[in-house]
Amino acid sequence: MLIQLNPTGVLDLLSQLEVDLLEQSSTSERYKLFRNCVLAVLNVGSHTDESSQIYDKYKDFDIRLLSRERGIKIELENPPKTAFVDGEIITGIHEHIFSVIRDILFICQKYEKDLQEQKAITHMVFDMLRNAHALRVNSEPNMVVCWGGHSINETEYKYTKQVGYELGLRGLNICTGCGPGAMKGPMKGATIGHAKQRIKNNRYLGLTEPSIIAAEPPNPIVNELVILPDIEKRLEAFIRTAHAIIIFPGGAGTAEELLYLLGILLHPDNEKQCLPVILTGPKQSKDYFEKLCEFIEMTLGKEALDKFEVIIDDPSLVGQKLKSKMANVREYRKSEGDAYYFNWTLKIDHDFQQPFAPTHENMASLDLHLDQPKQLLAANLRRAFSGIVAGNVKDEGVRAIKQHGPYTLSGEPALMQDMDVLLQAFVDQGRMKLPGSKYIPCYKIKA
Amino acid sequence: MLIQLNPTGVLDLLSQLEVDLLEQSSTSERYKLFRNCVLAVLNVGSHTDESSQIYDKYKDFDIRLLSRERGIKIELENPPKTAFVDGEIITGIHEHIFSVIRDILFICQKYEKDLQEQKAITHMVFDMLRNAHALRVNSEPNMVVCWGGHSINETEYKYTKQVGYELGLRGLNICTGCGPGAMKGPMKGATIGHAKQRIKNNRYLGLTEPSIIAAEPPNPIVNELVILPDIEKRLEAFIRTAHAIIIFPGGAGTAEELLYLLGILLHPDNEKQCLPVILTGPKQSKDYFEKLCEFIEMTLGKEALDKFEVIIDDPSLVGQKLKSKMANVREYRKSEGDAYYFNWTLKIDHDFQQPFAPTHENMASLDLHLDQPKQLLAANLRRAFSGIVAGNVKDEGVRAIKQHGPYTLSGEPALMQDMDVLLQAFVDQGRMKLPGSKYIPCYKIKA
Amino acid sequence: MLIQLNPTGVLDLLSQLEVDLLEQSSTSERYKLFRNCVLAVLNVGSHTDESSQIYDKYKDFDIRLLSRERGIKIELENPPKTAFVDGEIITGIHEHIFSVIRDILFICQKYEKDLQEQKAITHMVFDMLRNAHALRVNSEPNMVVCWGGHSINETEYKYTKQVGYELGLRGLNICTGCGPGAMKGPMKGATIGHAKQRIKNNRYLGLTEPSIIAAEPPNPIVNELVILPDIEKRLEAFIRTAHAIIIFPGGAGTAEELLYLLGILLHPDNEKQCLPVILTGPKQSKDYFEKLCEFIEMTLGKEALDKFEVIIDDPSLVGQKLKSKMANVREYRKSEGDAYYFNWTLKIDHDFQQPFAPTHENMASLDLHLDQPKQLLAANLRRAFSGIVAGNVKDEGVRAIKQHGPYTLSGEPALMQDMDVLLQAFVDQGRMKLPGSKYIPCYKIKA
Amino acid sequence: MLIQLNPTGVLDLLSQLEVDLLEQSSTSERYKLFRNCVLAVLNVGSHTDESSQIYDKYKDFDIRLLSRERGIKIELENPPKTAFVDGEIITGIHEHIFSVIRDILFICQKYEKDLQEQKAITHMVFDMLRNAHALRVNSEPNMVVCWGGHSINETEYKYTKQVGYELGLRGLNICTGCGPGAMKGPMKGATIGHAKQRIKNNRYLGLTEPSIIAAEPPNPIVNELVILPDIEKRLEAFIRTAHAIIIFPGGAGTAEELLYLLGILLHPDNEKQCLPVILTGPKQSKDYFEKLCEFIEMTLGKEALDKFEVIIDDPSLVGQKLKSKMANVREYRKSEGDAYYFNWTLKIDHDFQQPFAPTHENMASLDLHLDQPKQLLAANLRRAFSGIVAGNVKDEGVRAIKQHGPYTLSGEPALMQDMDVLLQAFVDQGRMKLPGSKYIPCYKIKA
Repeated sequence: MLIQLNPTGVLDLLSQLEVDLLEQSSTSERYKLFRNCVLAVLNVGSHTDESSQIYDKYKDFDIRLLSRERGIKIELENPPKTAFVDGEIITGIHEHIFSVIRDILFICQKYEKDLQEQKAITHMVFDMLRNAHALRVNSEPNMVVCWGGHSINETEYKYTKQVGYELGLRGLNICTGCGPGAMKGPMKGATIGHAKQRIKNNRYLGLTEPSIIAAEPPNPIVNELVILPDIEKRLEAFIRTAHAIIIFPGGAGTAEELLYLLGILLHPDNEKQCLPVILTGPKQSKDYFEKLCEFIEMTLGKEALDKFEVIIDDPSLVGQKLKSKMANVREYRKSEGDAYYFNWTLKIDHDFQQPFAPTHENMASLDLHLDQPKQLLAANLRRAFSGIVAGNVKDEGVRAIKQHGPYTLSGEPALMQDMDVLLQAFVDQGRMKLPGSKYIPCYKIKA
Repeated sequence: MLIQLNPTGVLDLLSQLEVDLLEQSSTSERYKLFRNCVLAVLNVGSHTDESSQIYDKYKDFDIRLLSRERGIKIELENPPKTAFVDGEIITGIHEHIFSVIRDILFICQKYEKDLQEQKAITHMVFDMLRNAHALRVNSEPNMVVCWGGHSINETEYKYTKQVGYELGLRGLNICTGCGPGAMKGPMKGATIGHAKQRIKNNRYLGLTEPSIIAAEPPNPIVNELVILPDIEKRLEAFIRTAHAIIIFPGGAGTAEELLYLLGILLHPDNEKQCLPVILTGPKQSKDYFEKLCEFIEMTLGKEALDKFEVIIDDPSLVGQKLKSKMANVREYRKSEGDAYYFNWTLKIDHDFQQPFAPTHENMASLDLHLDQPKQLLAANLRRAFSGIVAGNVKDEGVRAIKQHGPYTLSGEPALMQDMDVLLQAFVDQGRMKLPGSKYIPCYKIKA
Repeated sequence: MLIQLNPTGVLDLLSQLEVDLLEQSSTSERYKLFRNCVLAVLNVGSHTDESSQIYDKYKDFDIRLLSRERGIKIELENPPKTAFVDGEIITGIHEHIFSVIRDILFICQKYEKDLQEQKAITHMVFDMLRNAHALRVNSEPNMVVCWGGHSINETEYKYTKQVGYELGLRGLNICTGCGPGAMKGPMKGATIGHAKQRIKNNRYLGLTEPSIIAAEPPNPIVNELVILPDIEKRLEAFIRTAHAIIIFPGGAGTAEELLYLLGILLHPDNEKQCLPVILTGPKQSKDYFEKLCEFIEMTLGKEALDKFEVIIDDPSLVGQKLKSKMANVREYRKSEGDAYYFNWTLKIDHDFQQPFAPTHENMASLDLHLDQPKQLLAANLRRAFSGIVAGNVKDEGVRAIKQHGPYTLSGEPALMQDMDVLLQAFVDQGRMKLPGSKYIPCYKIKA
Repeated sequence: MLIQLNPTGVLDLLSQLEVDLLEQSSTSERYKLFRNCVLAVLNVGSHTDESSQIYDKYKDFDIRLLSRERGIKIELENPPKTAFVDGEIITGIHEHIFSVIRDILFICQKYEKDLQEQKAITHMVFDMLRNAHALRVNSEPNMVVCWGGHSINETEYKYTKQVGYELGLRGLNICTGCGPGAMKGPMKGATIGHAKQRIKNNRYLGLTEPSIIAAEPPNPIVNELVILPDIEKRLEAFIRTAHAIIIFPGGAGTAEELLYLLGILLHPDNEKQCLPVILTGPKQSKDYFEKLCEFIEMTLGKEALDKFEVIIDDPSLVGQKLKSKMANVREYRKSEGDAYYFNWTLKIDHDFQQPFAPTHENMASLDLHLDQPKQLLAANLRRAFSGIVAGNVKDEGVRAIKQHGPYTLSGEPALMQDMDVLLQAFVDQGRMKLPGSKYIPCYKIKA
């Protein structure tokens, strides 16, 4: 089965020089990454977070770039059938495929060499979002970033839908990491809310990264997809795009996101920042959030608790609060001369921008002691959880664990004990992996 | 609580003469009808098909027309709170309210006296649809009318969603009688299909009538609502707007619709008509459709079975077939010089256009014998089922039954027995009323 | 040469009943009127104001309505070639033709019988404008009605273009009687102004009437054309649509318009009305306006002069003044609860609404004395000038003069003398007819 | 007088890094060029082709870039008043200013170093057009490039308007070098044609270069302005964007354009190219075109005459021919897999891409002999005329002439004589400079 597809978005207008470069890039080492991401996008609807299972199942799948005088085309060989209706590809998936080409092959050419400078990294994040038309000059603050686990229970999932519905009814848009669970529910709910309010330009922005896209493929409601090169740039894209942030229950990834966020909000330069943050879930999640707050208080101090609000079992209240806060966000941005579509004034320290490679060595040597500046501690804790996410579901991490066994985390005993408790709770609540398999921890805590 | 609303649609541009007439009409006998329909629309999401319950619950609800130099406004007193978000009415409901005013108060003024002539009745149906902007000059055939029960079980409901999803994936639009059950499922499913295909001008057309709107309030996905004055005009609107028809499992109303449809398609003038009809449901509904087909064959003959196809448990096949048939519909209309947006060439006999008032007397005197022309028999059977629907859920019918006891249906014994079997099956399968109450039949069969 | 055209605007969605009525109406006595108006529209660009010349030249032109299942089509036989490009009709002319059908054949059916009541007449004017989509609900006050002669000299014509340019630069739209001269210049100028400001939804509204359309065919820049049934309804359409009025130099028609306007603005009920009026022209027209003002002062008194402003040779000032006045108009309408798109609160007395047939008898018996209420005098003077316009260029009037000789106007000597002076000035300045023929007055003044 | 303006087009979404670069570039040596181009754009409507006069008149004019968190703004000090209406800048001029910033300061940063490779030069041209949104993916072939003199007589000017009108009536768009004369007439005419056909997305594309923009400022109808860095890239932009080319009478610049075009079309690789070329003018220009054809035949041979057609005094025929040829252009591009919006397959030799600096030395050493390959000769002749244009109206050239006296052109006597005759004819016909001053040749022919 051979299918040819025309380019969409920025790729429909390329020069021959660009077509040549694109062709070359797809035959280089990047090719495998590219092919796997396209496969992930095509394979939406599958129910596994094991990338390797998907890659195994579609061994005979292939993708080729075809250069034409007028631009680029692509050819798919043996793509998953679920992406097609009566032989024609579903438009949303068609768009996602070209988002992959755009972000993995095309724009990355501009950023071959490693970026070090703060301004250059932020520019790259901005450039990738702009290139994806994800920055809208004339729109009011309305983008709510929703974080939370890909593996949550049915009650929690329904709750994320209800919250999404309440946001949609209030004309707010949704941005998530675009996998299943808490990344899908708010978008589904918002779809109904937007439909009832006859909103046509509704946005469901998905921000992902190559190493996780197969485990958490973009759900089909995502109508804007951007693939950032690594988790650090993805996190920066999240918080500079956000006008508000909701955190649903989740596992190690959600903890990583929360620590990243608090680490930045605690920076003195960000004291005046107006970025509403709400942690919310159904009644059953009350205990979960209490545990999390205790951990935060213990590690980052009482002041960290002032940076967010916890709302239990009240989707409508979440919607109301965020809607009313949008006016403050608008006012703050205006007073600072900042854009609505990108939070330039938010200070992100180099510690949070620098990519962290979760090798066994790096993980083992993380400085996990309480007696360091709060921001540094937040950055290090963020890295620890980031590594665990990699060991759980990211392709490279999973393979490293398979080869070398679990990561070792060590540090101050009190801290280590608390982390252990928290992580064990994630395991017990089934937040580490999708249900259906026994979870084997990818880490060992050494006090 | 007092809320003022601005006009939408055609009502936002009225002359003072029209404003005067509108004001007068709302203070006349029509007022109660109008108020109740608005209440029904506001009360969407309630879970009852007893109009009287709704009317009782909101006794202190009121609506007033306010005339302004620049046009009309309305004022709501004590409206149901569910129609509002943070004090503002949901846009979709706002639109539905003005659809009610438009169809119940405004356009009806033009049609005060009873219409008798075939052409005049069809003109009225056309005029009401046009006035609601429901006729689109430049669109291709793509409107699928879905009929089926308001009270169906969970398996059937999910099936209607899957069919709707497959239709939506193929760019087809949905028209239903806009209540719950089989009238809501296809729209919900299509919403997801349309979203995946990035279709923005998706249509969810609801055709209803004043006497049933409270029992079957338009679900919020309906983005075009037209309230025809009676069931006969509503049925005509359905089949002249349809490019294809799907019939899901249902009760008396669905039987009425099927008999109406077959009675018309069997007319010699309609022999060449291209109007695909599919009866479909999940595996569990196989028996249901077999029973129905037997009844059709017995009453309208084998040839009637050629007018439709039955597909069991295959949503994707339903989608494929209808999509491919759209080309034939297009070709047929073109060859006849007919419009795509309205099936003018379809012949509808006077028997099917003439309103039937389901009084006890009229019901009792229906001519229910097999030895009459098929079309006439179809028309009479249609009336019998129509009466039963009225007795079950329509306001006036329910009150008549309360006062005078069940209708009596009599006729040829063989036919009566078959009807009895069919109706009893509807009762047993819970298709007569929403679950939650014991169904007391509104009819007696007298052989 | 046979050409078939598809319907546009409201005519592209007709019921069969309406198609039947339309067909009947075109075969009735209206047919000749209809045919002549279509011919006038097709013949745009001709340089004559003698209708008869046009009608003679295209004796073999014919038009037929063709009824189709899906609506109406028209067929043109031997139409003027100038309306076509490579065998295809120019879109603007195509639209104008269907405006003629819409206004002469279609909507008029609703208004067969003579309207007497003030409200009914105003409703008809509103209904015709609405039916032509000429009333825009969501637009700000910006419509400038420009009156002035169809036969003006080159300097004056250039001046009207300059004024139009200044209006266009300020985002104002233009409405005129849509013939040549002062009716075309402002539109041409505004086109350039709008283009420079990148305004895309620019409006060039032409209001005409059947009896004058051949002598003053709509210029091709007119992008909205409405044909009101008589001069009185046309004048009402002008002033209820206007947010400001400019009067350029002109002849009898312009005098008629000014008297009509002042007669209405002098009504006590209109005292608070905010409707800016500017008389303007190049240096050479100074004397013209002085004469006109003297006549106004003599007949309607000093207070009448307060209702307008005269600006000589300053197009930019005209633009500035009107632009800044739009805020006042907006505020006035808002404070009165009136629409922006139609001036409902303006009081128009029956005397100004009642059609005046310029027969020799009616002209002779006009009450032209100074000792009557100002408004009545204005109404009578308006009729006198209206008759002269008819005798000069309207089809029926021209034929009446040919048959019975000039009209006789008589009344108070002082008034008669003044009128004579004014009219003689119009003659001397070539304002009565297009240049190229000697003007023979269609009136005699009898003191 | 200080005016601040917000960015438009691609400049409304810049990263802080880009804002920094932009600021730096405007304070560098480019600043003067940039300031002068903005001044030229603001000063539209002036009647001189002496850049220096303009620069002298507005000595106190200044422009500053203001960097904001959310992007760039500009501030104008003492700008020409004609660019403003009631204190607000005319939208079209506002857009042109940001086109200057975009092309002179922003995109050029990417192309600091000299480009040598054919593919890289073409890429730059493409990139600049794309960056200006001047390449439209989904439009049919319809762009007619019109070349001709900036100084033509009234009859010729009217003729260019008539041709433009006929093109506009047929839905064709216009691209010119965007000065006065033959660069303005076709756009003005097309505006009316487009208006009559109700075409809203009409394009008036102006391609200019920094060194000529002051002498030939973009007329206000230009709704897309691109400033290419030099004449060679500007010529490449013209012919790769063109679907057809019209050449009106003109002087040295027009001769340059014709020689460039023929030199390329005569390349063997371009034999199959479908690019209709028409030379046209009023009756009075017949002799002009005959002279030009003789020169072409003598220099480039008979075959060169087959590459174009001459049409005298028939605007409608020009329109018809080009309209009908669009189908061939479409077919050719389709068969080659080429884009409609950019002619990639057209072969342009390095000789035609390489910038030619018209120094006295370079001019004197041009190889002007008949016995060289036709293409080379065309390239050299092109350079000779290019130099004369520079000496006539381009800023740098004019200053060089002022300093060093006229250029010397020498070569084969027969050729030199013919050039002399042709150039003298241009002088005699007033085609070298705008009327109002005596023309002093900037060249000497030395046989």
